[in-house]
Amino acid sequence: MKFIAEVNVMPLKALLDPQGKAVRLSMHNTGFKSVENIRIGKHIQLELEADSEIEAEDKVKEACEKILSNPVMEYFEFEVKKA
Amino acid sequence: MKFIAEVNVMPLKALLDPQGKAVRLSMHNTGFKSVENIRIGKHIQLELEADSEIEAEDKVKEACEKILSNPVMEYFEFEVKKA
Repeated sequence: MKFIAEVNVMPLKALLDPQGKAVRLSMHNTGFKSVENIRIGKHIQLELEADSEIEAEDKVKEACEKILSNPVMEYFEFEVKKA
Repeated sequence: MKFIAEVNVMPLKALLDPQGKAVRLSMHNTGFKSVENIRIGKHIQLELEADSEIEAEDKVKEACEKILSNPVMEYFEFEVKKA
């Protein structure tokens, strides 16, 4: 069966996020003054083949841990659904 | 009221996504051979102050159009919820 996974890889909350800080400044300068605490990470969509939803989730988790995220600086969350 | 927005900015489906292609190759080389069609974009979390959920959605939409995405190459989708 085919599954679609939506993965978010975000900078750890304990770390500064310079990209987010820069975007916050741009937003304040462009008039969006009510915006605070911007954090910017990656959004990854992928398709994969697996026998069951549980197997698909295990594969995505392993891929997140091994390739898609750097656990020293980032955490991930994901959702898997049938394609 | 405080709202939290979760924004995804992704490369348009009509465009190639070289970053996704590179990650797909790495995944195949590391044993994740069942993974296909990887697309990589940005995930942005932000907090904002607004009088209502509709106002918050309007602000986030405007911010996406003006700053957070480049409509020539990217599309966006977002969700707003109460903090």
